[in-house]
Amino acid sequence: MHNSNRVIIRDENYDNKTLRLNETLFSNANGYIGVRGTLEEGVPADFSTMRGMYLAGVYEIIPMKQAESLCNLIEKKQTMLNVADTQSIDLYVCGERFDMGTGELISNQRILDMDNGFTSRKVIWKSPLGNTIKIETKRMTHLGIPQLFTIEYSVTSMDFDGEIVFDSWHIADVKNYSDPTDPRLAAESPSYLTVNCAEAIDNSTLCVSSTGVSDISIASATSGILLGEDDFIDVYDNTDDRRVCTYYKGHISEGQEIRLVKFSTFSDSQISDDPGKDALAVLQDALEEVKADGSGLSHLYDKQTKILKEFWDQSALKIMGDDDLDLAMSFNMYQMFCSAPRIPGYSIAAKGLTGEGYEGHYFWDTEMYALPFFTLTDTKLAKNILHFRYKTLQKARENAGLLGHKKGALYPWRTITGEECSGYFPSGTAAYHINGAVSYAIVQYYLATGDKNFILKEGAEIMIEIARLWLDTGNYDRKGRFVINEVTGPDEYTCMVDNNFYTNCAAAHGMKWMVKFLQIFANTPEIISLKQRLKLTDKEISEITEAADKMYLPYDEELGINPQDDSFLQKPVWDLENTPREEFPLLLHYHPLHLYRYQVCKQADTVLAHFLFPEDADKQTMEKSFRYYEKITTHDSSLSTCVFSMQASRLGLYDEAAAYFGDSAKLDLMNLHGNSSDGVHTANMGGSYMAFIYGFGGIRIGEDGLSVNPFLPGMLSGYSFKFKYHGRLIEVSVSEKEILVELLSGDELEFSHGEKRYKITGGEKCNIKQ
Amino acid sequence: MHNSNRVIIRDENYDNKTLRLNETLFSNANGYIGVRGTLEEGVPADFSTMRGMYLAGVYEIIPMKQAESLCNLIEKKQTMLNVADTQSIDLYVCGERFDMGTGELISNQRILDMDNGFTSRKVIWKSPLGNTIKIETKRMTHLGIPQLFTIEYSVTSMDFDGEIVFDSWHIADVKNYSDPTDPRLAAESPSYLTVNCAEAIDNSTLCVSSTGVSDISIASATSGILLGEDDFIDVYDNTDDRRVCTYYKGHISEGQEIRLVKFSTFSDSQISDDPGKDALAVLQDALEEVKADGSGLSHLYDKQTKILKEFWDQSALKIMGDDDLDLAMSFNMYQMFCSAPRIPGYSIAAKGLTGEGYEGHYFWDTEMYALPFFTLTDTKLAKNILHFRYKTLQKARENAGLLGHKKGALYPWRTITGEECSGYFPSGTAAYHINGAVSYAIVQYYLATGDKNFILKEGAEIMIEIARLWLDTGNYDRKGRFVINEVTGPDEYTCMVDNNFYTNCAAAHGMKWMVKFLQIFANTPEIISLKQRLKLTDKEISEITEAADKMYLPYDEELGINPQDDSFLQKPVWDLENTPREEFPLLLHYHPLHLYRYQVCKQADTVLAHFLFPEDADKQTMEKSFRYYEKITTHDSSLSTCVFSMQASRLGLYDEAAAYFGDSAKLDLMNLHGNSSDGVHTANMGGSYMAFIYGFGGIRIGEDGLSVNPFLPGMLSGYSFKFKYHGRLIEVSVSEKEILVELLSGDELEFSHGEKRYKITGGEKCNIKQ
Repeated sequence: MHNSNRVIIRDENYDNKTLRLNETLFSNANGYIGVRGTLEEGVPADFSTMRGMYLAGVYEIIPMKQAESLCNLIEKKQTMLNVADTQSIDLYVCGERFDMGTGELISNQRILDMDNGFTSRKVIWKSPLGNTIKIETKRMTHLGIPQLFTIEYSVTSMDFDGEIVFDSWHIADVKNYSDPTDPRLAAESPSYLTVNCAEAIDNSTLCVSSTGVSDISIASATSGILLGEDDFIDVYDNTDDRRVCTYYKGHISEGQEIRLVKFSTFSDSQISDDPGKDALAVLQDALEEVKADGSGLSHLYDKQTKILKEFWDQSALKIMGDDDLDLAMSFNMYQMFCSAPRIPGYSIAAKGLTGEGYEGHYFWDTEMYALPFFTLTDTKLAKNILHFRYKTLQKARENAGLLGHKKGALYPWRTITGEECSGYFPSGTAAYHINGAVSYAIVQYYLATGDKNFILKEGAEIMIEIARLWLDTGNYDRKGRFVINEVTGPDEYTCMVDNNFYTNCAAAHGMKWMVKFLQIFANTPEIISLKQRLKLTDKEISEITEAADKMYLPYDEELGINPQDDSFLQKPVWDLENTPREEFPLLLHYHPLHLYRYQVCKQADTVLAHFLFPEDADKQTMEKSFRYYEKITTHDSSLSTCVFSMQASRLGLYDEAAAYFGDSAKLDLMNLHGNSSDGVHTANMGGSYMAFIYGFGGIRIGEDGLSVNPFLPGMLSGYSFKFKYHGRLIEVSVSEKEILVELLSGDELEFSHGEKRYKITGGEKCNIKQ
Repeated sequence: MHNSNRVIIRDENYDNKTLRLNETLFSNANGYIGVRGTLEEGVPADFSTMRGMYLAGVYEIIPMKQAESLCNLIEKKQTMLNVADTQSIDLYVCGERFDMGTGELISNQRILDMDNGFTSRKVIWKSPLGNTIKIETKRMTHLGIPQLFTIEYSVTSMDFDGEIVFDSWHIADVKNYSDPTDPRLAAESPSYLTVNCAEAIDNSTLCVSSTGVSDISIASATSGILLGEDDFIDVYDNTDDRRVCTYYKGHISEGQEIRLVKFSTFSDSQISDDPGKDALAVLQDALEEVKADGSGLSHLYDKQTKILKEFWDQSALKIMGDDDLDLAMSFNMYQMFCSAPRIPGYSIAAKGLTGEGYEGHYFWDTEMYALPFFTLTDTKLAKNILHFRYKTLQKARENAGLLGHKKGALYPWRTITGEECSGYFPSGTAAYHINGAVSYAIVQYYLATGDKNFILKEGAEIMIEIARLWLDTGNYDRKGRFVINEVTGPDEYTCMVDNNFYTNCAAAHGMKWMVKFLQIFANTPEIISLKQRLKLTDKEISEITEAADKMYLPYDEELGINPQDDSFLQKPVWDLENTPREEFPLLLHYHPLHLYRYQVCKQADTVLAHFLFPEDADKQTMEKSFRYYEKITTHDSSLSTCVFSMQASRLGLYDEAAAYFGDSAKLDLMNLHGNSSDGVHTANMGGSYMAFIYGFGGIRIGEDGLSVNPFLPGMLSGYSFKFKYHGRLIEVSVSEKEILVELLSGDELEFSHGEKRYKITGGEKCNIKQ
């Protein structure tokens, strides 16, 4: 494996072991389309492939029957759809079908080029009859034309003259992936799509399908251009009404290269009134652009490169002294950038657009883990993502109603449209802290961008409904403390507990900031009318203030730590040391009730609370808590090590910070959890970014402004990163000798470092190393 | 409605409102066969009927997919089967089909005769063409021949001469009842039975069906005899292979009575190697008996009456001054007697054999609520029922294993075969207190009967495995208390709590008694070999002793009560006063998570603990607790008022005891919960018996022997009851003037009343009123 700065190159055996993982790592996405890095020619039936193409927010509603029907339990869910397959291309060389499982595979290489935004594949293959070809494919989901996906498929004859045939497929009757043995994947896979048409139109093919329940219409169009050969014949065939094939047949000579350029465009009824027409129109535009250019796809490639250059210019993170880490971080940032919705009101799924794990659902992960990256690098994308919670606020109110709340909004634990899709509420809907993730993200977004407009138009209303929900959920106990009972914190190995420290901190934070926003913007017409519309009285506001002030945060005198919840410390400690390796993740090997009965954590819970809400505990408590929870955390969740890393940084535990960071940063690229084959772990990618920027970089954005307190982990010789703050672009460069803060653009910047405050102006560079 | 002592007579409108309820109340059962009191001729399609015939322990295994698949969650369940319908008889009078919805229904009466063990129906009906008939049917499931069900169907012409036809059906392709809107019933109803044969054999019909998964074969045979008319023609028809019809066609004259006697016999592969042959053999025997007798069914009726006379002679409970209560108690006792398995190793389902509610599952109800009745009246039936837990002990061990336990047995929350069938574990499998019900029942059975043999052969082994489970479930907290976390107590409106007072009391009781049994029978060869076989060491025994001694029982100083669990009192009190009537039962109107967040009880929990384990709290705590929980209990469970009644009796709250008793005693007969249509509430029936005997009657059987401390509730003029104690039959008669204790049979009896001790010998009657 060779890796340059932002290029990943892997020489690949053709085996079932790495196939599905590479499908994830070499996937393409642009926020609307996601294409798994599956092989154009397919794989043998006994290989495990998750062949898929996905469109952001395109789903079907399917039944999710409860084993026992209880009042208001969720009995249907949304599931992301595998849409039409346009990536299938069969190649026949002198009558022999190209299949890496036959003949001789001389070389097989995969490349992800993150500077230029494409994946490619280089294969040299000798057919069973002895004809050798070189195949180079290049695939791109275009970041500037989100509905466009292209494949460039080039064949070179190394040693023969003969007939060559491309069967370029457009297949509408696809199914979702399923695996009944893994609770994190769909267990069954019926056909969700009804194919309305699959036909050839002029030089294009068009497939239109529709869903039965969600009533979404999905269209895809393809067209191919052959470069390097004019004598080829192309024929369309759509005999079976559910797939269309375009045949290209001709002659290739030794040394000659034949290149098929295949355009695929997608549309759906959520973004267009006539998806079929829309897909064809986008296709036509793309073809025009190619023709105008005369040089194949180079014009489109240039555009893609330009967009990525801009992206890296604004956000680049450079690590000196560990190329693997550097590459892993580039990969993580690139994947996040590619998975972010370009259309306001969509969000980022747990696996981005790279796979069907977690059925394409959005969780709290988006706001808590992924969003900070966008908040600090691309305000517009951040706002798009936050808008999803505003768009679905009414559904969150209804969800709260299902749970028996008279007031307020409760965001669903997992969703595509805003309706709850969690089938097991104790570790789903009961995780009320998702509300805390939303409110925290709004506050952080506001503090980092100063975007008042968002608060006035959307943020404040969300904050009010979240605060109301907390007020309705908690109650005063006999000691006059505001307690929140029967909720599930981030750690799902303990469910439906009382006074989860994390949840209570997040609730108090959300409630206080709601009141704060109302004060900051008290006299704006937006807030005045909002209060009227929501019938928010001063009495209610003071009740919210009081509840936040009197929020009970459990503290254990004896251990000097914040217990995860009221009863956590009375449970026995799980014997992690003597738990066999093959029993991890525990959730796949132990009944949930058994897990609930032990002190054992799937992930950071109290430690995350200490990081996010440092004002709620003193340093000693945080240190002791870190040490305590570290011993009982399995990190079975991919959201865990990044948190331990950033909190270790905060606490000055630099070695631990670095070790945890490595685990987090390389999780997908090294497949450390063994399940990246189902898609990347988007939240952890964001988490690794936070661990770097907030942890090593020591960036903190609070009410008192920006502070920068970096440190250089022992294993690195230096690093630098860029981020945005209130419209300014800032670069921090850290080496053994100096810590430079440079204002690359924007107005004069004030920030603090330790006890000192600094002021710099545009272009100014300042060494703050003390 | 007219009611004699043990006869219930109801004049019935023919309407959909009462139909299904009367199907329950006028059902027949004998411990093996249960037949709903459905109409022979059926009902219109828009009527809601639960037409069913059931066989004890006959079930199919059906999928119970979890909405989200978590480790070791239950994904299949047993469900009781509706077996072949042999009760259908269509009657045609001069070509008109008898249908109470047509013509004129002149009278319609239902009778349940509990002295003679049959139900009957008396109808006078004028057909649309004006022919009037009287129909009298009499149905019996024979208590002496458990495989036999008979219908006597008599028709008398009141005013016409003409043709009369009986179509007597034997229908093999039946379905279970379903109601997708009620969580307490099955939501779907596919066909579970494959019909292997449905045919006429000589003068009989035979149907044999089998289940696909549980692999049970079920046979039913019928035969008919016409009395009063020799000229009738009978023809068999089985055109469709899934049902057989026997036609009887002839002439009836004005004033003439024609009587069809239909015998049905049942068998299944769990009780016979060849169920078809068995059913036919039992049928032949029954027919022989009729022929030998020459007088129709009178011989069989006499046998039935004799069995019931013996039953009432041993157990009769007589209430003076309230005939309704007296009748209700007779009904409850009769129903329990009819639902008890005559074969060891079966149990009593939540609805007995009277309906499909709760899918025929056995719960903790059997041991805790129903068993005391049998323990005090019929040692053999009690032992049959207890044997079920021994028969399924290995499955309970496996169930514990699924929950992550290394040792011990955990009985399933609901089951037919011993495997868990609960789909929602927080209020199912997590209710570990079912173990407590089993151990308590064993102890009570031993104390009341002195049956050492049962303890040595079965009881001790169960007790050991239960004690081991508790030891493995709980742990010592930092104060050195043995705590039991994450279990669900009897009150299902709060789930997965820590230190449920009831559970902890029950666990300590079971553990202490395990040790006690080992001591009592220390030197028996059975116990010596049992300890070896189970590898029970002295160390383990002392660990169990210590855990029981250090069991934490929560107590609240401020309120002076035992809190239901650790966090119960920090929750807000549900505002029951302002909850609209139509929102009860709450479980049908509120999300479980919402219920869990309040102080609101579905049923007695701590109050039951105080009744069962009076040594675990002082009188003041019990009184205060009673008052506290009384205010927050909805009695949405049918297991509740009986407990409140008996505990009120214990506490001397006589008016409350009487009021709660009335609710409990009449629950089914008056349909107080509105759902007796799905079957009787067997456990509450047993509970009403306990409330009477233990409550009013003041019977207590402890290690120190029998004590008798009755009181006379204000609304009664007197009462008497009989019960068994160590082989003796005792009668207690209470009036305003005296309290008589009479030893009807058996050896000299010692008992205490208040502080006094008495000794009486056989036939002696003793007035203990002080």
